[in-house]
Amino acid sequence: MTPPKLYFSQDEFQQRIRKTRAEMGQRNLDLLIVTDPSNMNWLTGYDGWSFYVHQCVVVPLSGDPIWFGRGQDGKGALRTCFMAPENIIGYPDHYVQSTERHPMDYLSAQLADRGLAKGRVGVEMDNYYFTAAAYGALQTHMPNAQFVDANALVNWQRAVKSEAELGYMRQAGKIVEKMHQRIFDKVEPGLRKCDLVADIYDAALRYDEVAGFGGDYPAIVPLLPSGPDAAAPHLTWDDAPMKSGEGTFFEIAGVAHRYHCPLSRTVFLGKPTQIFLDAEKAVLEGMDAGLEKARAGNTCEDIALAFFAVLNKYGIVKDNRTGYPIGLSYPPDWGERTMSLRPGDKTVLEENMTFHFMTGLWMDDWGFEITESIRIGANGPECLSNVPRKMLVKD
Amino acid sequence: MTPPKLYFSQDEFQQRIRKTRAEMGQRNLDLLIVTDPSNMNWLTGYDGWSFYVHQCVVVPLSGDPIWFGRGQDGKGALRTCFMAPENIIGYPDHYVQSTERHPMDYLSAQLADRGLAKGRVGVEMDNYYFTAAAYGALQTHMPNAQFVDANALVNWQRAVKSEAELGYMRQAGKIVEKMHQRIFDKVEPGLRKCDLVADIYDAALRYDEVAGFGGDYPAIVPLLPSGPDAAAPHLTWDDAPMKSGEGTFFEIAGVAHRYHCPLSRTVFLGKPTQIFLDAEKAVLEGMDAGLEKARAGNTCEDIALAFFAVLNKYGIVKDNRTGYPIGLSYPPDWGERTMSLRPGDKTVLEENMTFHFMTGLWMDDWGFEITESIRIGANGPECLSNVPRKMLVKD
Repeated sequence: MTPPKLYFSQDEFQQRIRKTRAEMGQRNLDLLIVTDPSNMNWLTGYDGWSFYVHQCVVVPLSGDPIWFGRGQDGKGALRTCFMAPENIIGYPDHYVQSTERHPMDYLSAQLADRGLAKGRVGVEMDNYYFTAAAYGALQTHMPNAQFVDANALVNWQRAVKSEAELGYMRQAGKIVEKMHQRIFDKVEPGLRKCDLVADIYDAALRYDEVAGFGGDYPAIVPLLPSGPDAAAPHLTWDDAPMKSGEGTFFEIAGVAHRYHCPLSRTVFLGKPTQIFLDAEKAVLEGMDAGLEKARAGNTCEDIALAFFAVLNKYGIVKDNRTGYPIGLSYPPDWGERTMSLRPGDKTVLEENMTFHFMTGLWMDDWGFEITESIRIGANGPECLSNVPRKMLVKD
Repeated sequence: MTPPKLYFSQDEFQQRIRKTRAEMGQRNLDLLIVTDPSNMNWLTGYDGWSFYVHQCVVVPLSGDPIWFGRGQDGKGALRTCFMAPENIIGYPDHYVQSTERHPMDYLSAQLADRGLAKGRVGVEMDNYYFTAAAYGALQTHMPNAQFVDANALVNWQRAVKSEAELGYMRQAGKIVEKMHQRIFDKVEPGLRKCDLVADIYDAALRYDEVAGFGGDYPAIVPLLPSGPDAAAPHLTWDDAPMKSGEGTFFEIAGVAHRYHCPLSRTVFLGKPTQIFLDAEKAVLEGMDAGLEKARAGNTCEDIALAFFAVLNKYGIVKDNRTGYPIGLSYPPDWGERTMSLRPGDKTVLEENMTFHFMTGLWMDDWGFEITESIRIGANGPECLSNVPRKMLVKD
């Protein structure tokens, strides 16, 4: 059999499992059922676009984790997970989208066979891919288990990145640099959005002969709304041409082996309006203030308060958080879903935590984004990519 | 205020809502809470990459539906939904990824204010984006409601496509033709997978001056595993070069305004092995047999049984379904999640239902896919794209 392709050492996987088990111990859990595809990959290496059917990784108190998924995807698990084949369980295809049986019924029986269908069992209650029906099926078919919300338990273990992980994130940073360069080279009035997106994917994916790597798919497609559409942060593209006199923000990420480096910039075609010039000034000054606080020992809130203080000074109201942790991700989100850079979040920053410092403004009829992805250092942040930090103006 | 961009007439939205309410009536539902992004779009026009936070569309017994989502995404709802602003409810940002409060708490209060937090309330129990925690929050905060599983209720209403929908699906068919042409033009030994994916996106997205449209993003990224990796249906690409002597399947879709036309083909570089030649012969003959049954009045099972009978004749075992309905979709799946083309599914085919006839084979150390996306006609199927139906061989 072809050995699996692993992007991390066995040691690193074992370390991750130990960290996870330590937290399980803190919470007196006997078993953890992990449905977040990012957590599944982080614990086992599993990588595949199969999260549209029910699947999970089960972490018992000892031994290797167990991958559980659709039978045909078991082959993908054999090719990407570090575990031996006996730890890969595939369920029969008549469990897929059936109204009579649920894949979690099958999992329950498999766990019972292994003596694992009992005790305090952690589940990721608020993770997509752990549906209300999946939970109901487990409750019905594991009557001797007591279910405990372990949402984000594994996500929190992912917060501090290893050197190997940072290596991929810096690769992703190189990729996002090329993507923004391509945007600036190509953007002009009359250019259709869909054509620009084709160029963004081209810059994101093609193999770089000098750097020695190509790109992976992002957990969120490129977002590049213009003019009043930019008031909404999450509209996707159409095939309309770009216009002079409008601002467009580009929220995109470079990706290497599922590790993301998001980075946003704003382009103004023609002479920028005073609103955009004022936004640029406030955001850049606010970012400087926030980055100043981005060091180990400070808190998430420290970064946010420093940034918001500058916005307030300029009379700008931003009523949403200003950042989130990043790393390994699958659609629909490249955020890690633990801390937030917002007032009230007193999580202490540790060295090698990584964040998207998301300083975007979405106002009534315009939007503006200049952001950075950063690594928390002992004495200050490392920017994971190097793209000129300013509004790009093209006449 | 800028009027919303709608891709369907008000009449068509009202018709969809009427169909949905008729089924709600059959099930004695007083309210329907719809979390599937495809269903949300189909009922209201809502389009945006915001499904990584909690959101839904609420369908009461009378009046327009209500869009509910994150405050900042409310602006996107105003720009893409047909409803008036009073039917767009945004929740405050401190509900996002909070461990203390859930967006569904807020929804419950809003529904109570409108007198809607009672009676029989349908929820999509097994849809991703309806998490166990979301259901728990609704149960806690809507004590006067009785929750009923209405999973796929709206999906079923989407099964028969309108002329306008078929128009977009045929556009998507034109796009996937260009994608396969590009693959055949570019594929050769030594070409890196990531570079080929860049080309696939380029063909998928760029504006076609003759046809008059560009492309939208697919709900599943391009899948193009080679050799033994093709045994696993859902591995994504890496940056390794393609090799002579290997088969590669390409499972891709063209997309127009979120409407998909998936289509798979297999490419063999070099002289095809007997295994691939045998697979081609069996699959093509099986497809002919299945397509022969693809007409209104027959059943889903009829197509599957005809296809599997031919495979059996050739001694090939495929232990998974051979197709599913398609149309409007968001990640992570381009299937409609209702019927399946498999033995036992006795759903009667109706004119203008649309399916991906997914005849892929994933064997121990190889894989093979030649598929068609079809519209069910009164007297037979319409293929939604025209790509030579054969294994493509390139020396």
